[in-house]
Amino acid sequence: MRAVVARNQDLVVEMVPDPVPGEGEALVVVKACGICGSDLHALKFGHLMVEQAAAAGMPSNFNPALDFIMGHEFCCEVLELGPGCNGVAVKPGDLVTSIPISLSAKGIEPIGAYSNVYNGGYAELMRLTAGMCVKVPNGLDARRAAMTEPMAVGRHAVNKGDVTQRDTALVLGCGPVGLAVIAELKRRNIEVIVAADFSPSRRAVATQMGATDVVDPATEPGIDAWRRATGGAKPLVVFEAIGVPGILDQAMKDAPAQSRIVIVGVCMETDRVHPFVGISKELRLQFVLGYDFVEFNDTLRCIADGEIDVDPLLTGVCGLDAVAEAFAVLSSPEQHVKILVEPGADSHLVAI
Amino acid sequence: MRAVVARNQDLVVEMVPDPVPGEGEALVVVKACGICGSDLHALKFGHLMVEQAAAAGMPSNFNPALDFIMGHEFCCEVLELGPGCNGVAVKPGDLVTSIPISLSAKGIEPIGAYSNVYNGGYAELMRLTAGMCVKVPNGLDARRAAMTEPMAVGRHAVNKGDVTQRDTALVLGCGPVGLAVIAELKRRNIEVIVAADFSPSRRAVATQMGATDVVDPATEPGIDAWRRATGGAKPLVVFEAIGVPGILDQAMKDAPAQSRIVIVGVCMETDRVHPFVGISKELRLQFVLGYDFVEFNDTLRCIADGEIDVDPLLTGVCGLDAVAEAFAVLSSPEQHVKILVEPGADSHLVAI
Repeated sequence: MRAVVARNQDLVVEMVPDPVPGEGEALVVVKACGICGSDLHALKFGHLMVEQAAAAGMPSNFNPALDFIMGHEFCCEVLELGPGCNGVAVKPGDLVTSIPISLSAKGIEPIGAYSNVYNGGYAELMRLTAGMCVKVPNGLDARRAAMTEPMAVGRHAVNKGDVTQRDTALVLGCGPVGLAVIAELKRRNIEVIVAADFSPSRRAVATQMGATDVVDPATEPGIDAWRRATGGAKPLVVFEAIGVPGILDQAMKDAPAQSRIVIVGVCMETDRVHPFVGISKELRLQFVLGYDFVEFNDTLRCIADGEIDVDPLLTGVCGLDAVAEAFAVLSSPEQHVKILVEPGADSHLVAI
Repeated sequence: MRAVVARNQDLVVEMVPDPVPGEGEALVVVKACGICGSDLHALKFGHLMVEQAAAAGMPSNFNPALDFIMGHEFCCEVLELGPGCNGVAVKPGDLVTSIPISLSAKGIEPIGAYSNVYNGGYAELMRLTAGMCVKVPNGLDARRAAMTEPMAVGRHAVNKGDVTQRDTALVLGCGPVGLAVIAELKRRNIEVIVAADFSPSRRAVATQMGATDVVDPATEPGIDAWRRATGGAKPLVVFEAIGVPGILDQAMKDAPAQSRIVIVGVCMETDRVHPFVGISKELRLQFVLGYDFVEFNDTLRCIADGEIDVDPLLTGVCGLDAVAEAFAVLSSPEQHVKILVEPGADSHLVAI
């Protein structure tokens, strides 16, 4: 099959052996797979990811100096079921998605997410654990179904922030993660959702996704916009969806007493904070990552039922040959939000 | 009256005007007042406290270059009630304590806690808001009742950590705050309470207060002792009660995924953390400060009812003339844990 292989900080399209489904696995055809910001990061700074994970006591076998295949926001069609798949809920022809993890007798493997196992969404074929596949309901198409994974990240962040109807929200950064957070806040009818981003086009998408106020931090700090919108007297949950050094410290300084700060932006560098600021205002910092099965599956249902409209996020598609071009385009926020790779489609990067 | 005045980073005993109780205030005789670690800090680094509070968006009128009177862990006897005290629950002769804040038509004033209002526990007399005074129950003596404030800090930290019976605890630092946390964890019958401190005497007190395992971090990291005690497979709440740079980062690196870290040690300096470590393990950092009325009042009840035994913490008493000596002694952890100032007693610092 054809696949986009990450090699020496570059992306190379080449023929690789077709995957063979093992015990309990489905062989699937990738219909659409979103490009995640963390993929851009892993391509250039994979060694840093590994170092930091090891420092956190979570060593991995991932060696970014060796080849790997990325793509973990996928929607696929089942081609065939491997041995030991009796009783699974999916069959050949079904459109499915899955949490990007495979479970087998060999253990847990990430799918398309930073391992040297050749199994990721930037390829024509993949192996999925059949029992973990979820059938796409309600006639939802593959493009929208592929948005389940990034939108589930927003759902999870809002869950971990213990956001209730009493709360208001300030979302710092309107990349795909910040926008997914906004979509989930909107779904919960949170009354005040202030979104801050330097990019005019990202602010426009934030409004489409449900932000009640958008602000350019170059003109006005997000916290000031929040204060204008609320009078400053309502409980606040800040979502830090930028992930560069200094943002967390600023958010801590800006936040009113008793605020929660949910850190969903992945800052890979050492950061500086002022603990006394946190103490004097009794802040809660909740770092978040990923989602659980329930969050993932119900996010798919929400998209299929129209509770979450992902269309404003879907800005481009490309075939395998244009993935490198898409990575380059995504390094600036103005042109695109989410580009989907369609391994079976024409190769150019086109706006949708 | 005689008072210990903080002046130019020094403590001076001198005569100051007797306080006059205003509307709704009680004039009280200080029977015992604990020396808090933050008092030692405020004496030398008051300007830093003010700077950092301002940076956190919480400016104060405190000017540490001017004179001030400290002492916020007090137990007092009511001498007389000022005007407008009809219907209050206390009367002359009552032994009382209070949250160290006064409320009046003039607004909110801290008592003995870093303001230039001459009203603190290192003095013969004080003014308290009569309606906020709590009568010491059950014949409890003034020394033990004066421990209400520091023990309430521990109660609050455990509350904010959402500690349940499923959780285990690791307490980093066995100063008065860490020990108060341990006492509250013990009161809740938390099965595993691991306490870490370099000082052998502090570790001994930790055991008396309820720590189930104590460890010298020079010999073994606290997290390793916790792993030995639990097998590493139980939910963990870490209490950071040291408050020096680097501890938070280390605690984040050490903690298992999904741990909560309650930051109750006051680090006044800029600190470095690795957000990726927090994200990869979905840590929750809860900064805490103080307590609320319910926590304070019920802590007094717990001490009076024998649910919390404060005796292991009570290591010394002194009169006003020996407060400076007590401050010096408390800068090392070996000799004393909590020294109470008894303005009416003999001046020498004596062990109890």
